Amino acid sequence: MQISSTSSSIKLTNHHHMIRSSSDHQHQWRHNYNLKQLFVPSSCPNLSVSNSPLNQSVAAIVFGGGSDPELYPLNKTRSKGAIPIAANYRLIDAVISNCINSDITKIYAITQFNSTSLNSHLSRAYSGFGIEKDRFVEVIAAYQSLEDQGWFQGTADAIRRCLWVFEEFPVTEFLVLPGFHLYKMDYKTLIEDHRRSRADITIVGLSSATDHDSGFGFMEVDSTNLVTRFSIKPEKDQQDFISVENRTTRSEETSSCCVPSTGIYVIGREQMVKLLRECLVKAKDLASEIIPGAISEGMKVKAHMFDGYWEDVKSVGAYYRANMESIKSNRFYDRQCPLYTMPRCLPPTSMSEAVITDSIIGDGCILDRCVIRGSVVGMRTRIADEVIVEDSVIVGSDIYEMEEDVRRKGREKKINIRIGIGEKSRIRRAIVDKNARIGKNVMIINRDNVEEGNREAEGYVIRDGIIVILRNAEIPNNSIL
Amino acid sequence: MQISSTSSSIKLTNHHHMIRSSSDHQHQWRHNYNLKQLFVPSSCPNLSVSNSPLNQSVAAIVFGGGSDPELYPLNKTRSKGAIPIAANYRLIDAVISNCINSDITKIYAITQFNSTSLNSHLSRAYSGFGIEKDRFVEVIAAYQSLEDQGWFQGTADAIRRCLWVFEEFPVTEFLVLPGFHLYKMDYKTLIEDHRRSRADITIVGLSSATDHDSGFGFMEVDSTNLVTRFSIKPEKDQQDFISVENRTTRSEETSSCCVPSTGIYVIGREQMVKLLRECLVKAKDLASEIIPGAISEGMKVKAHMFDGYWEDVKSVGAYYRANMESIKSNRFYDRQCPLYTMPRCLPPTSMSEAVITDSIIGDGCILDRCVIRGSVVGMRTRIADEVIVEDSVIVGSDIYEMEEDVRRKGREKKINIRIGIGEKSRIRRAIVDKNARIGKNVMIINRDNVEEGNREAEGYVIRDGIIVILRNAEIPNNSIL
Amino acid sequence: MQISSTSSSIKLTNHHHMIRSSSDHQHQWRHNYNLKQLFVPSSCPNLSVSNSPLNQSVAAIVFGGGSDPELYPLNKTRSKGAIPIAANYRLIDAVISNCINSDITKIYAITQFNSTSLNSHLSRAYSGFGIEKDRFVEVIAAYQSLEDQGWFQGTADAIRRCLWVFEEFPVTEFLVLPGFHLYKMDYKTLIEDHRRSRADITIVGLSSATDHDSGFGFMEVDSTNLVTRFSIKPEKDQQDFISVENRTTRSEETSSCCVPSTGIYVIGREQMVKLLRECLVKAKDLASEIIPGAISEGMKVKAHMFDGYWEDVKSVGAYYRANMESIKSNRFYDRQCPLYTMPRCLPPTSMSEAVITDSIIGDGCILDRCVIRGSVVGMRTRIADEVIVEDSVIVGSDIYEMEEDVRRKGREKKINIRIGIGEKSRIRRAIVDKNARIGKNVMIINRDNVEEGNREAEGYVIRDGIIVILRNAEIPNNSIL
Amino acid sequence: MQISSTSSSIKLTNHHHMIRSSSDHQHQWRHNYNLKQLFVPSSCPNLSVSNSPLNQSVAAIVFGGGSDPELYPLNKTRSKGAIPIAANYRLIDAVISNCINSDITKIYAITQFNSTSLNSHLSRAYSGFGIEKDRFVEVIAAYQSLEDQGWFQGTADAIRRCLWVFEEFPVTEFLVLPGFHLYKMDYKTLIEDHRRSRADITIVGLSSATDHDSGFGFMEVDSTNLVTRFSIKPEKDQQDFISVENRTTRSEETSSCCVPSTGIYVIGREQMVKLLRECLVKAKDLASEIIPGAISEGMKVKAHMFDGYWEDVKSVGAYYRANMESIKSNRFYDRQCPLYTMPRCLPPTSMSEAVITDSIIGDGCILDRCVIRGSVVGMRTRIADEVIVEDSVIVGSDIYEMEEDVRRKGREKKINIRIGIGEKSRIRRAIVDKNARIGKNVMIINRDNVEEGNREAEGYVIRDGIIVILRNAEIPNNSIL
Repeated sequence: MQISSTSSSIKLTNHHHMIRSSSDHQHQWRHNYNLKQLFVPSSCPNLSVSNSPLNQSVAAIVFGGGSDPELYPLNKTRSKGAIPIAANYRLIDAVISNCINSDITKIYAITQFNSTSLNSHLSRAYSGFGIEKDRFVEVIAAYQSLEDQGWFQGTADAIRRCLWVFEEFPVTEFLVLPGFHLYKMDYKTLIEDHRRSRADITIVGLSSATDHDSGFGFMEVDSTNLVTRFSIKPEKDQQDFISVENRTTRSEETSSCCVPSTGIYVIGREQMVKLLRECLVKAKDLASEIIPGAISEGMKVKAHMFDGYWEDVKSVGAYYRANMESIKSNRFYDRQCPLYTMPRCLPPTSMSEAVITDSIIGDGCILDRCVIRGSVVGMRTRIADEVIVEDSVIVGSDIYEMEEDVRRKGREKKINIRIGIGEKSRIRRAIVDKNARIGKNVMIINRDNVEEGNREAEGYVIRDGIIVILRNAEIPNNSIL
Repeated sequence: MQISSTSSSIKLTNHHHMIRSSSDHQHQWRHNYNLKQLFVPSSCPNLSVSNSPLNQSVAAIVFGGGSDPELYPLNKTRSKGAIPIAANYRLIDAVISNCINSDITKIYAITQFNSTSLNSHLSRAYSGFGIEKDRFVEVIAAYQSLEDQGWFQGTADAIRRCLWVFEEFPVTEFLVLPGFHLYKMDYKTLIEDHRRSRADITIVGLSSATDHDSGFGFMEVDSTNLVTRFSIKPEKDQQDFISVENRTTRSEETSSCCVPSTGIYVIGREQMVKLLRECLVKAKDLASEIIPGAISEGMKVKAHMFDGYWEDVKSVGAYYRANMESIKSNRFYDRQCPLYTMPRCLPPTSMSEAVITDSIIGDGCILDRCVIRGSVVGMRTRIADEVIVEDSVIVGSDIYEMEEDVRRKGREKKINIRIGIGEKSRIRRAIVDKNARIGKNVMIINRDNVEEGNREAEGYVIRDGIIVILRNAEIPNNSIL
Repeated sequence: MQISSTSSSIKLTNHHHMIRSSSDHQHQWRHNYNLKQLFVPSSCPNLSVSNSPLNQSVAAIVFGGGSDPELYPLNKTRSKGAIPIAANYRLIDAVISNCINSDITKIYAITQFNSTSLNSHLSRAYSGFGIEKDRFVEVIAAYQSLEDQGWFQGTADAIRRCLWVFEEFPVTEFLVLPGFHLYKMDYKTLIEDHRRSRADITIVGLSSATDHDSGFGFMEVDSTNLVTRFSIKPEKDQQDFISVENRTTRSEETSSCCVPSTGIYVIGREQMVKLLRECLVKAKDLASEIIPGAISEGMKVKAHMFDGYWEDVKSVGAYYRANMESIKSNRFYDRQCPLYTMPRCLPPTSMSEAVITDSIIGDGCILDRCVIRGSVVGMRTRIADEVIVEDSVIVGSDIYEMEEDVRRKGREKKINIRIGIGEKSRIRRAIVDKNARIGKNVMIINRDNVEEGNREAEGYVIRDGIIVILRNAEIPNNSIL
Repeated sequence: MQISSTSSSIKLTNHHHMIRSSSDHQHQWRHNYNLKQLFVPSSCPNLSVSNSPLNQSVAAIVFGGGSDPELYPLNKTRSKGAIPIAANYRLIDAVISNCINSDITKIYAITQFNSTSLNSHLSRAYSGFGIEKDRFVEVIAAYQSLEDQGWFQGTADAIRRCLWVFEEFPVTEFLVLPGFHLYKMDYKTLIEDHRRSRADITIVGLSSATDHDSGFGFMEVDSTNLVTRFSIKPEKDQQDFISVENRTTRSEETSSCCVPSTGIYVIGREQMVKLLRECLVKAKDLASEIIPGAISEGMKVKAHMFDGYWEDVKSVGAYYRANMESIKSNRFYDRQCPLYTMPRCLPPTSMSEAVITDSIIGDGCILDRCVIRGSVVGMRTRIADEVIVEDSVIVGSDIYEMEEDVRRKGREKKINIRIGIGEKSRIRRAIVDKNARIGKNVMIINRDNVEEGNREAEGYVIRDGIIVILRNAEIPNNSIL
């Protein structure tokens, strides 16, 4: 990193100072940091700051995700966190793996919307997580109680109602995490930053230049990374935003407005309790109510910038894009930061004559004479002879369906086609959800170039120009979609 | 069960015929059965009836229990199934253990009310249940979906909304089980009976003479164990019941009315689907709607009688009684039918000078110079010097609280008393719920002989003449209750 | 069950009584069996034979395998049972899976030779096998004791020394299983046969016409499946064998000599104790000493014939053949009889441009522009650009090796090549053992058509005309083998 | 530890410096340490020393223990590490728990002598230790290989032969631990000390003044904690020892001789490999060969002093003493440092009228009208009416034996007495090993005050004046021992 002597360089320094999670910059950062110490003694890191190991002192609260219409039909029977991704995983595995790899081992997952698959996945995948009572991934499903018979009304409401659970262990910070983002972050660095700066709340912001409309709000950050303003909707308030800026006579150089928030927060235990139980007892949402409220209350809210790969899987298009990214990723093979998921013992993938280009193939597939290009093919996928799959996501299957199963189900439910993709079919730029039954000679190519369309009765939906075959849907032989 | 006074010998025969689960009567039953074969060939067991092993062909659906006011405050923060019982267990363990011991290994637990503790218990206790995908205890918590944003409206509604989950495996029968009853039953015999009689639904009825008001309805059963009528409330309809009886001119000898149902049903898979999805699509409750509806639809509904120990833990009094029963039980030490629960590795119980009579003591207690008589003392209970506990249930503690913990919590929440029972206190005929803090020299003796009373602000409630100290409550030194 | 008095009904009864492990041949076999029944009515099934469930009444004793020179170098650092097979498995998984699928859930594995990998595999793969104390796969490694400081001297000696362990549960039969055979058998049928025939010992024999020299001995079986003679070496004794035959004046039609034994025995608990502790206290081996001894002692030794796929992986050639068979098998996808192994959560297989024909690919491979034909490619295999693999077994890797790992190891141990197969290499009809490092432009083609050769110093061995690259071996760039 | 009488202040400082694991002294230690920094800059802690987390960088190698005659008959069928202790535990649990609590999560347990119980315990107790591949307790049982068909010849030989296993993970240090010592140590402090001092090997020495004859050798330590000499037998060499001392003209103040070693070593990975594979390729034992050899080779061997509770359970007397200590201990209830062991779900202890003083009672006992004083009563112990147990260790039982079990076993083996302690028996200062059957009216009081005696045929042995009833032994009614 180049440091010039002008004032702008200070900003850059600060900027880099904010980058914690990118190991490449670590050494430079230390260097700068030391330099800074000489001149800014008042903000020097306090040596007495808690050094307690994260597995003792931090609990993660992961949200399973709500009923996001942009994701339909992928979330028709499952919550966001449970959506299968990258052939072998579920979305939530990315965040849970980040926690484990950061030695944060008390993990609560709050679920409410379509939670069955997610609860099942989490219980099975992480049940063997530890014999120690303080290593766990515990699902907290929405529940009725005598005092409160309604559903969780938002993230803040959910945490408030579950505080009695979270208070079990004497942790000092809560790490709040949306469970449906794809990224790799070392939360250790984040927590250390939070502790060093003696913040009440630390929000992870995105420093990369992309126009993420994360939905988790935007923050105005000063040169010390202090969040001076937080707003859930930047566009509308933009004008006002700037004017406030002017009124406070802050120099433009030292303040960057509209840093998008990731919805990741480190919140001190006492601050969490105070905000939810004392200051903002009616607040339902963290982003729109608790964070601005904390700033109003005078709490020290800091930003921690992240600039790695980040994907908020918030729409069918984003889901498609994330899968395509996963093909190129070598994230998977990093021994230091493995991606955890449900352990399985599936058979090897069997291929009778497959030509596969730029694709990833999940465990235990059965691929006959077929061509697969630029695609993600999930677990237990069956692809018959003369099939061509291009630029698509085949989610896979929960079971190996036998011919006899098809016959039995045929009698019960008029099902005639086996799970998988039938002979001579062709799939291009589509998503085939789990357990779908694609007949023979089917063309899934979005022939009419439709951008948005709902043909649920026929087993599919078109979103962002991508055909999505519904879970369990049956597409008859010779269909052209 | 009401047995009329005539033709007792025939009725007794039928009676024994119905007894399946009680091994004492097995020999007699066989005898009768064989005799019967000679004369009733038409009802002989059909050899072609499915013999598929239960772990492949039956799935259990266990209900975690609702907001039963009679159980308050024991269910204030937990569902019925999660209530601790017999020092080391939770109520639901009895039913889950029955399943495992009967080789029924696909177990779904439906939870909604105060489900957090129950979900956590089930996940932790039974996570290591099997590597095979078809051995599981899976929690299905109430959830919102796009089609249905409300809570489960009743047992039938819950099953209907989860049918898509239950249909995963090709089982032939569902075994529906309330998760908060205490009894030991071999469900194998029940299923065999169901299959042999070619019933659509088999309901377990209580044959013992006690006046169980089970809340699961009452059935009229003829001499072939056919359920001819089912009513949820016998008392009110009793008159009408009998008159209908008369109108149908059924002879008194062959019919016994008002057999209480246990709420345990074996329902054929196809029948379940038909009833919930076709015949009674609006029905919310099994007992009050589906069962009578099935009879109306002409389905063959049979009774299977049970006459062993049975306790529906539906009130504070019943809970107290069940604990007292557990002291006398040698149920625990039966190698063939172990009671499963959360595996733990607690330290041994330490006793400095304890005189203990007719009591059971859970794992890892710390008992100083104290006297314990006729009581159930749960895990990790601390009892200080000169304490006398009589005829009481001490539920125990989730943690070993250190002096330093008390100090820390004291600062945060004004707590001053350590979890457990302080010196020189005396407890008689009371229930001390989990993590309660009883000070020194406290008398919990129901001094004023109150039958019912609510002193929640002071940390206790009186139900059925029993003082219940609330979970986490703190009773100051020198209190007299 | 209705039993009428005519002879045909007896046949029917016997028919129902029926047996067998090989579904393909079931019908034919039944036919034969019925014919046989006509003449031997005295052996009709006894109805009082034990029907206790196998998970309560049978314990399996599985042997991990010894130092078989024919298998070298595959068993250089691991026992037979631990040899990787079919991309995702270890040999012993086949037998353990047979047990689990047959509901035999008390499994002891006796290990001694190169047992580390096997013990580790069994512990990790089957640790989550059950919460019930009587469901387990327990490794019994060779050990020294005060009475006996030597190694196990043979299968009989090993069982004798471990009887105190096997006696823990009140089982009625032991099922003795070599742990390194590939086959699918329903042991339930075997046990039922054993019980029905009231045998003391039942030996599984191979009925198929192949010339298996199983090494487990040969038996002479009469028309009632009674084993009248047992010899470990048929060839030498053949003459004598026949003459004995003649002396006993047994008709040739009803007796088949030289049925090869599989080494699978069902032995009654009491008989096992009596043979090992009373009759043959010095015997070391089951096949050569205990079985002939039992016949001499007058015990009833029966044969149970098996005619399905069977492979004794006893040589490099057999290992190669078994892998080639696994490519064609659809054994893997049978939901009723899954093959268990170590659960893993590996990433999907990544392919940049792979043309794969008639092959199976294990979990988590990284395949660049390569051609794979008729091969088994094990877990985590890396294959670089322009590689051709034909008719080969690539065992795979234990880890994903990073470039930095290679550098670190390079400093330590002069390793320069990454685990996997380097660019432009070509492998034909070879076995590449685990973690091997094949450089760039390497030809492994057995250029000189060597049948047997030992080049261990150079990292390989040739057996049965197949080149075997040793585990962890490094083959330098441009080598031609 | 021998402390000479001069210059006590300096020595005490050093003394405190050496105390690492005792938190009480932490503050003093820091104080001294800081002071020291001012004057001894050359030995200042190097900031660049590896800070990699212990779960990544350290592997523990735990030894299960050999055939120690002093422990007979407790080790008759089990290795030292598997001996039950403190009602609920096995000896090895103490060391494994130390590892887990110190965040050392790669644990290899080397077993050879009577290893069956130990292997089984470790597999079952710690199987659920983690889903991450690098968290494990892996048993490495003695095994035969093609190169080496003998048993492990000693600790060094065992490590050498297993180095190929230990090298799997890129750890930087091995922590070698005897698995049969009772103590609580934070190995983090030990490793930090090792790293800070840049030692090749760090040996834990006992600083407390007791005359431990640990059998692990004695070291001469200078004022910088450098081990200048190491000898396995101090007594004989004492004279020579001192003379060497004199010859090297080391001042008495700065050197303490004869510090007993605990057999705990931290050894750098490279040093381990070098010593075992290059320098001392024939050495069999760590204490007598490798450690002195390392000193001769000029390696930097340092001492790390420990002065907490320590018990080497090396004799029947030590075992008895350790159990008596466990009664007084509050070690068990420390939430920060739990003692792990096999998770169980036993029923509560049932007491019909028990008077229990200064005792610990394991899980699931059945105590009738009895008096227990100063005793350790293990899991599932049954004590009948009118029994008095004093100052004894009752190890407990593996099962709940039913009356029918006794009858069945009676037929098989002439057993007539149920497991447990029969009516009116009296036990004083004795050890009753597992599954022993003590009849009615038995007196186990060492009537004749025998110090040593072997009556194995009668089911007991007397060691150190303590009667030891053998495992599974049966003591007939009315016996007086």
